[in-house]
Amino acid sequence: MSGEPRPHVVIVGAGFGGLTAAKALAKAPVDITVIDRRNHHLFQPLLYQVATAGLAPNQIATPIRSILRDQENARVVLAEVSAVDPARKRLTVGARSLAYDTLILATGATHAYFGHDEWAPLAPGLKSLEDGIELRRRVLTAFEAAETACDADERRRLLTFAVVGAGPTGVEMAGAIAELAHRALTRDFRAVREAMARVLLIEAGPRVLPTFRPELSAYTGRALEKLGVELRLGEAVTAMDEAGLTLGGQRIEAATIIWAAGVRASPAAAWLNAPADRAGRVEVAPDLSVPGAPEVFVIGDAAHLTDAAGVLVPGVAPAAKQQGEYVARLIRARLAGRPAPGPFRYADFGALATIGRAAAVVQLGHVQLRGFVAWLFWCVAHIYFLVGFRNRVQVGLDWLWSYLTFERGARLITGALPASLNSHVAGACDCPPS
Amino acid sequence: MSGEPRPHVVIVGAGFGGLTAAKALAKAPVDITVIDRRNHHLFQPLLYQVATAGLAPNQIATPIRSILRDQENARVVLAEVSAVDPARKRLTVGARSLAYDTLILATGATHAYFGHDEWAPLAPGLKSLEDGIELRRRVLTAFEAAETACDADERRRLLTFAVVGAGPTGVEMAGAIAELAHRALTRDFRAVREAMARVLLIEAGPRVLPTFRPELSAYTGRALEKLGVELRLGEAVTAMDEAGLTLGGQRIEAATIIWAAGVRASPAAAWLNAPADRAGRVEVAPDLSVPGAPEVFVIGDAAHLTDAAGVLVPGVAPAAKQQGEYVARLIRARLAGRPAPGPFRYADFGALATIGRAAAVVQLGHVQLRGFVAWLFWCVAHIYFLVGFRNRVQVGLDWLWSYLTFERGARLITGALPASLNSHVAGACDCPPS
Repeated sequence: MSGEPRPHVVIVGAGFGGLTAAKALAKAPVDITVIDRRNHHLFQPLLYQVATAGLAPNQIATPIRSILRDQENARVVLAEVSAVDPARKRLTVGARSLAYDTLILATGATHAYFGHDEWAPLAPGLKSLEDGIELRRRVLTAFEAAETACDADERRRLLTFAVVGAGPTGVEMAGAIAELAHRALTRDFRAVREAMARVLLIEAGPRVLPTFRPELSAYTGRALEKLGVELRLGEAVTAMDEAGLTLGGQRIEAATIIWAAGVRASPAAAWLNAPADRAGRVEVAPDLSVPGAPEVFVIGDAAHLTDAAGVLVPGVAPAAKQQGEYVARLIRARLAGRPAPGPFRYADFGALATIGRAAAVVQLGHVQLRGFVAWLFWCVAHIYFLVGFRNRVQVGLDWLWSYLTFERGARLITGALPASLNSHVAGACDCPPS
Repeated sequence: MSGEPRPHVVIVGAGFGGLTAAKALAKAPVDITVIDRRNHHLFQPLLYQVATAGLAPNQIATPIRSILRDQENARVVLAEVSAVDPARKRLTVGARSLAYDTLILATGATHAYFGHDEWAPLAPGLKSLEDGIELRRRVLTAFEAAETACDADERRRLLTFAVVGAGPTGVEMAGAIAELAHRALTRDFRAVREAMARVLLIEAGPRVLPTFRPELSAYTGRALEKLGVELRLGEAVTAMDEAGLTLGGQRIEAATIIWAAGVRASPAAAWLNAPADRAGRVEVAPDLSVPGAPEVFVIGDAAHLTDAAGVLVPGVAPAAKQQGEYVARLIRARLAGRPAPGPFRYADFGALATIGRAAAVVQLGHVQLRGFVAWLFWCVAHIYFLVGFRNRVQVGLDWLWSYLTFERGARLITGALPASLNSHVAGACDCPPS
């Protein structure tokens, strides 16, 4: 870095938005500090595969430092931000404060339980790598416990998986668990008979994949049912405990509940004391800056914007990347004294979701794909967007291997056994072998 | 399994010994229950590579269920054993009890701190996958914290790694950390200058690799010094706290301490109320049975035996495997009414240890190898013994990739940042960029 002080751009969060902004400022005459509380960028679209033992955590995560290794004007700091003072242009990192000239908050989102925060430990969501590892542990441990449970009711409860929310993550989780239960694990778990495992996909709205076209939702619903997933549409979860949940007045015994229903923005709005929507997203100006603080930008899942074309920008990776690009362009224009670009517009290139082995839905403008062709497209697109040559090769080989063998390559349970399940497992040892 | 009850062989622990015994009983007219408190068999010889971010956890661990998938007479139970009653031939698993006809305890060993159990959280050892992941987190977090530390003394402390114990694990850890510090990470950590990282290998005895021939010890010592490892031989750690340790009266500030010094057997001896050596190993009869309980066997790291040839059987994987084979042969002979095999004899096929990139030592009977040839031999041998075709391919490709690029493929920090390091990281944000 040069000796002369240059404008300091601080980027909080190295997800899709923050990382794109940092890279798009590579040639700009600025010093960049990227702060993240994790050392890795996570490729969230494949996190459900970590949760279902298909991929290993390191295959979808890359050290932020490695990604920005060759970018001379960027440094990476592993730390947690706790406050922002827009008036003094400083942010609080741990016990000290850091000055910025321009601030980009790309802090993402977390799970929302719609006023039922007590459900969080009962029904974990899927945002971080730790979430993925924890869900993998719960799913695999449920199969282990079921294998040795003596009581038929208890075995049925252990083999009941409820996924709440039928957006892409919920659909992908339900499909992947159904494949685990009915294909990948049946050879290893002798007492777990195919027909017994029950996978529920619960959605309060009338159809799965509500943001997709109705035809694709209908196809996805049928494909999931073919995989053995039980769809519960138009029904809401009203109660939950360690043994199961209540759905439209009906009690369902289920050992594993997965939350894919609600998203709540990280506390960027609270830091800034800025107006926010119900999900906690900062209501940003058309140029993604914070009203009253033109040198502070909020992008990605932490921002709420209806763009210049009247489109509500969705909380997806392509939108976050486009916003990162846009803010970098705006910063470069300001530094060069050029006129700022026009207001941000989201370019919707489509959406895709995988349903299971060799089935997916793809919606690209007027083009729709479904089935095997869509699944191939989905595989290629995800490998293409994955960060790092090595991860791409590994994931490609792993998928090929899983496709051919029906195996799952990352069936690890780490950490202590949950006490509740451990007692079932242990209690079951005296069963006669089946 | 047949309807008629067959003798029930219970094997506790699916490490090298237990798994070998289970497989060697595949054709025997018995029902086998393998109990382990983890769902995976761990290839411990490569665990140091997980701790130093070279390999991912799933690459050296395989579900026990998958390994025994095709063995009709074996079932696998994920549970924790807490007691054995040899008089009633039952063992306690959780809250209930399980009857056995023959019991094989292959429960392995854990770390021993020689009366300093308070050192355990300060200087974790390396036995389980969780240990490996925790050490990886500590090592990588130390580099992250050093990167942003302002104070030079503090940075030096953060970049000081002390490995206690210079057996194969200690040598391998010290060499791998030195390579991380001086090669693999230097491109990503700008403020971490090569010369600053300090790796100490501490050994109370007079030489590294004390069980190897003196020439190989000497070669290994020189090779480690070439890698930048500081050898501290003939010195013992006398005190330890969160900031460092005392070594022969000298205080050394070190953020990361790794324990590779002592081993203590799992509580098999306590369960059996059997005589044990100082390390807690059961003093077994020449046929590996427990004196007074001929249907109970203890094998591997949990057993102490001076064999028929007068050799003290070492706590290494080949010895555990040979004992597993031996006990299976003895059980088959008893069932068939054939005379029991003669007392157990350990066949020492040699020992090997890797020092770092392209250097290792191998001792096979009268043959000694060192340097690159030994390293190639080490690589081939470890891939050969690794369980599972897929793991072999992956590890082979990963090693090739690391060899060519100097990269490490599994640089993940998961879990919360340690509070102590987090404060350093956070406190350092206001440093001028270096």
